[in-house]
Amino acid sequence: MIIVMKARSQEKELREVVDRIEKLGYKAHIIHGVERNVIGAVGDERGKAQLQSLEVLSGVEKVVPILKPYKLASREIRPEGTVVSINDKVKIGGDKIVVIAGPCSVESEEQITESAYAVKKAGADILRGGAFKPRTSPYSFQGLEKEGLILLANAGGKAGLPVVTEIMNPKDVDLVAQYSDIMQVGARNVQNFALLKKLGRCNRPILLKRGMMTTIEEFLMSAEYILSEGNLDVVLCERGIRTFETVTRNTLDLSCIPVLKERSHLPIIVDPSHATGYWSYVAPMSYAAIVAGADGLMIEVHPKPEEAESDGIQSLKPAKFAALMKDLRVYIEAAGRV
Amino acid sequence: MIIVMKARSQEKELREVVDRIEKLGYKAHIIHGVERNVIGAVGDERGKAQLQSLEVLSGVEKVVPILKPYKLASREIRPEGTVVSINDKVKIGGDKIVVIAGPCSVESEEQITESAYAVKKAGADILRGGAFKPRTSPYSFQGLEKEGLILLANAGGKAGLPVVTEIMNPKDVDLVAQYSDIMQVGARNVQNFALLKKLGRCNRPILLKRGMMTTIEEFLMSAEYILSEGNLDVVLCERGIRTFETVTRNTLDLSCIPVLKERSHLPIIVDPSHATGYWSYVAPMSYAAIVAGADGLMIEVHPKPEEAESDGIQSLKPAKFAALMKDLRVYIEAAGRV
Amino acid sequence: MIIVMKARSQEKELREVVDRIEKLGYKAHIIHGVERNVIGAVGDERGKAQLQSLEVLSGVEKVVPILKPYKLASREIRPEGTVVSINDKVKIGGDKIVVIAGPCSVESEEQITESAYAVKKAGADILRGGAFKPRTSPYSFQGLEKEGLILLANAGGKAGLPVVTEIMNPKDVDLVAQYSDIMQVGARNVQNFALLKKLGRCNRPILLKRGMMTTIEEFLMSAEYILSEGNLDVVLCERGIRTFETVTRNTLDLSCIPVLKERSHLPIIVDPSHATGYWSYVAPMSYAAIVAGADGLMIEVHPKPEEAESDGIQSLKPAKFAALMKDLRVYIEAAGRV
Amino acid sequence: MIIVMKARSQEKELREVVDRIEKLGYKAHIIHGVERNVIGAVGDERGKAQLQSLEVLSGVEKVVPILKPYKLASREIRPEGTVVSINDKVKIGGDKIVVIAGPCSVESEEQITESAYAVKKAGADILRGGAFKPRTSPYSFQGLEKEGLILLANAGGKAGLPVVTEIMNPKDVDLVAQYSDIMQVGARNVQNFALLKKLGRCNRPILLKRGMMTTIEEFLMSAEYILSEGNLDVVLCERGIRTFETVTRNTLDLSCIPVLKERSHLPIIVDPSHATGYWSYVAPMSYAAIVAGADGLMIEVHPKPEEAESDGIQSLKPAKFAALMKDLRVYIEAAGRV
Repeated sequence: MIIVMKARSQEKELREVVDRIEKLGYKAHIIHGVERNVIGAVGDERGKAQLQSLEVLSGVEKVVPILKPYKLASREIRPEGTVVSINDKVKIGGDKIVVIAGPCSVESEEQITESAYAVKKAGADILRGGAFKPRTSPYSFQGLEKEGLILLANAGGKAGLPVVTEIMNPKDVDLVAQYSDIMQVGARNVQNFALLKKLGRCNRPILLKRGMMTTIEEFLMSAEYILSEGNLDVVLCERGIRTFETVTRNTLDLSCIPVLKERSHLPIIVDPSHATGYWSYVAPMSYAAIVAGADGLMIEVHPKPEEAESDGIQSLKPAKFAALMKDLRVYIEAAGRV
Repeated sequence: MIIVMKARSQEKELREVVDRIEKLGYKAHIIHGVERNVIGAVGDERGKAQLQSLEVLSGVEKVVPILKPYKLASREIRPEGTVVSINDKVKIGGDKIVVIAGPCSVESEEQITESAYAVKKAGADILRGGAFKPRTSPYSFQGLEKEGLILLANAGGKAGLPVVTEIMNPKDVDLVAQYSDIMQVGARNVQNFALLKKLGRCNRPILLKRGMMTTIEEFLMSAEYILSEGNLDVVLCERGIRTFETVTRNTLDLSCIPVLKERSHLPIIVDPSHATGYWSYVAPMSYAAIVAGADGLMIEVHPKPEEAESDGIQSLKPAKFAALMKDLRVYIEAAGRV
Repeated sequence: MIIVMKARSQEKELREVVDRIEKLGYKAHIIHGVERNVIGAVGDERGKAQLQSLEVLSGVEKVVPILKPYKLASREIRPEGTVVSINDKVKIGGDKIVVIAGPCSVESEEQITESAYAVKKAGADILRGGAFKPRTSPYSFQGLEKEGLILLANAGGKAGLPVVTEIMNPKDVDLVAQYSDIMQVGARNVQNFALLKKLGRCNRPILLKRGMMTTIEEFLMSAEYILSEGNLDVVLCERGIRTFETVTRNTLDLSCIPVLKERSHLPIIVDPSHATGYWSYVAPMSYAAIVAGADGLMIEVHPKPEEAESDGIQSLKPAKFAALMKDLRVYIEAAGRV
Repeated sequence: MIIVMKARSQEKELREVVDRIEKLGYKAHIIHGVERNVIGAVGDERGKAQLQSLEVLSGVEKVVPILKPYKLASREIRPEGTVVSINDKVKIGGDKIVVIAGPCSVESEEQITESAYAVKKAGADILRGGAFKPRTSPYSFQGLEKEGLILLANAGGKAGLPVVTEIMNPKDVDLVAQYSDIMQVGARNVQNFALLKKLGRCNRPILLKRGMMTTIEEFLMSAEYILSEGNLDVVLCERGIRTFETVTRNTLDLSCIPVLKERSHLPIIVDPSHATGYWSYVAPMSYAAIVAGADGLMIEVHPKPEEAESDGIQSLKPAKFAALMKDLRVYIEAAGRV
């Protein structure tokens, strides 16, 4: 932590800061500058929030943190990268690109089963489908809940695909874990710390979506919540951030891929459907994500998008998804992946 | 809902849209334009999400919603405005400006009691203090939980102030309700729909904070979640949104006050502490909020900000808070409030 | 400047950085931390950009600037604040609140003259009116140019008001200066450095609008461009920044007022018309701006907003403006201004 | 244009709107809804701004534009796409991917000549180098101006590369045109309409960079300014937008590529150097841009980035650039380009 003193701060004020730093267990190094003094607080990270509070002292201009706040999520502790096993066959973070596909919501047995067979045939590795739906409006379809979980698990079983579905309420963790192979934390819950802590104590891999206003540092801190409770199987998912641009539903931040790869050992996948919000932009953004270094994709596929209860506009029809999967191969190869 | 057809869409495509609109129970009105056709879908709001999905049809350029998606939160259903009673004496939304004050977190009996007496003496109406703390880092102080709730309730009782505290986990609703007079939903949980639904079924007033990425429309939809479950005592709180500007912690969006007053009957208060993130900006933003039409303020006060476990930088010392309260009177009068 | 070394950087890399720092004329102070080393570069600011480039060296994690990049605009060089004289009577930055009012564009002699008399009667101090209009579309009304300048100057002369108008092209500086008492740099030109430099060498006060994406630091650097060329009469104007919120045209950042007052000696006024984009929000935001510490307001007034060539939606009719001016008095008094 | 009336607007108010619409030369179609009425204004686009101003009338809730505001830039007028010729050999927008490379600023004859030979050898098609530099600080290096133009042209001549450089002041158009093959409008000048109009009347191709706060629609309107003055050779360049994320210098908005390709016939290239602000992210974002459909890249290359006067952190050394160009081939092929 670096404490920058004000230009005209006095010796007495400098002393007070040094005293407090030392009382908190840090060693203080003073650099006398031409215009203002700077103090380095050397020591481990505990108590950091209290160091930050020194900014209220009269002689202090600002407190600048130096160390990254995350530990278990940082690349340094596992430089070779993490591979998350979903089941015996599907692993995220290795050489093989993993594709998750399926409808936004589980709507009926027919719809989810048709989806499962279609995405399996096209080459997807995991089936997605929402049973608990976070909808902006209380009047929109809220998901089939437990019935949806059962339909999803059955459809995955029939098609031979592991399944992923969203978990919204800490009390449902056991129920959702029973019917899914990987549990998804949605963008709106990325800082639902009560949920993250609970998931950190379960034995299912977690797909953690970046929130639309979450910085990369906050995103890794949310992963840290899960990791610090003991669950090390976390997959990150970029799904677009909120900006001033409204032509696309969100702005897909693909440069977060090399940034996250540099800072963290966790695998990262990309959801171009929610990011762009429109089916015709999904294919180019899928290709771009893979060559930028993503470990996988999450794509919305619906047999009849024009009748979808949610997100029809961004869902691909099975035929379009199959075409995307075919075209994707050349980019996967070009990127040196499988 | 207005459906705009593409410039070169064909009669057949127009027919398909009209058929689907009518099948969903709406009446279709076609306007033939010089360059493209537009269809008005007339009818009530149910099925709206499915109307939106029509955007995937080949001849459709875009679907433009016309009606506001919230109902119970809208000004139209209660033009005179809502007054939320916290207890016999404190009401939010009437002529009287209500000030909520206290520390970010309950840290000790001494700290919260000293805070309670100090803010009471300065003229505050409600005591705040967090027992469950949503912290970006799992390594930061997470709150005293149940012990914190008890300390807060006791301090409020001694000082003669009702208390407000944050609720994060749906399972804690009964516990938190037992020790508080109004429950706060924090910015990070504004779209935690599982929590909102649960709060909609309890009998405590709710202080709903706008998220840092929440649009005004989404904010009212979150209020609608609570209202639609039966709890009509919702107070909105603007606390800054996230923008590119980093000099302040967030950007306080004061123009949301007249916008919300126009669109909704719910009372609105402002939290200038979290919005600006720095104690010296709290007073001018408090004055501005009141004359812009806010019904109250939420201000962080801490006996020793430089030792605070959280948010010390934005907390006022009791003496500064007392000065603010004194200066505030003239602005309250100027605004025709009490 | 603080240079933070990577956790596993080597002694040799540390040496290279120190060598380069010293070659650039700075003194290097090394702080050996528990996890990584930090180097303070002590010296004056010249060559700063080159210090920043050290971030490309292999052992360096990041370079953190310590000093503010602006000098002439900083509060420290004129702690008592600057008062900009527009003419003998009108001064911005003193005790008296200054109100600038008038139509977005000069459209006709009748329109601007009627506007001038109306705003004068209501108590405005300066007449505004655009002759060169920066319009998003080349097909929108582009302003009456020289004819507009003459009409504006004449209307101001008749009503006894100094005038302000926008300057867009460096080549027009002399022309616009001839017909105006203060020249406005619009939001889109806040980083048009060729224009700023030219204005820094003229003898007219400059009203510098913050861009919709300009940080406060960049805003002060733009002012610094004008100041550093010799023109010390700069008035800052907050007019809303671009955020994700679309209910208002922009998001008015009122907290920038105390921030700018703390950091700079330049006067600051607020334009609630462009910020909110809707006439009914102009009055509450005007009141809020004044009590937050602004030195003045800039308000759009049009005799017939529904027929305006530009920005009709955000323009007040003369009667509404007169009412606003009347109500404003109590807030001006409350704020201890005149 | 669709005019939405308020829920409780009266027949008289509806009549007034219809009268005004018809007086402006449009045909009015009324749709009577269950809750509110909607009026379609049918006719060509002239006078659109005045239609928008109808929003001030008492019965009107909002005015919704239907047509896109750009014409000459729209895909519809040239569905096959535009190819911009820089010289006999280099064309942007055809099958061949075009790479522009070179230093941020021209600093010396040695530096720019070395850069020119290096990027030519690695396979670049156009040499870049700034002579007029838009710098946030007036104290930063402002470019060598005319001398820089001459050095750049000479270096390009020796290496056999056409050159691109930035134009900032309308008065310099002839000078810059004399020494360059394509002129660049920087991000900060994307809405410098005086400059755009001047460039619309010159006979050099224009590289138009998106501003950091420019929406895609505004970006196309800025292109429209140039096109509408007669210059049809415009190349668009995405270079990152400003968001809340600060880990990267800007947020590269790659999804704008398919959006722009869908809406406009103009070629589009991507500048990953300014977008990410850090050299190690440039390669993955270059690959991603190409497979997302970009027609070319603009990459900063400097022989000694650690000594650069500007943007050293984001510049590649020649060896790294050569490696990028080699790796790029496989992605170009995969994308079906040359």
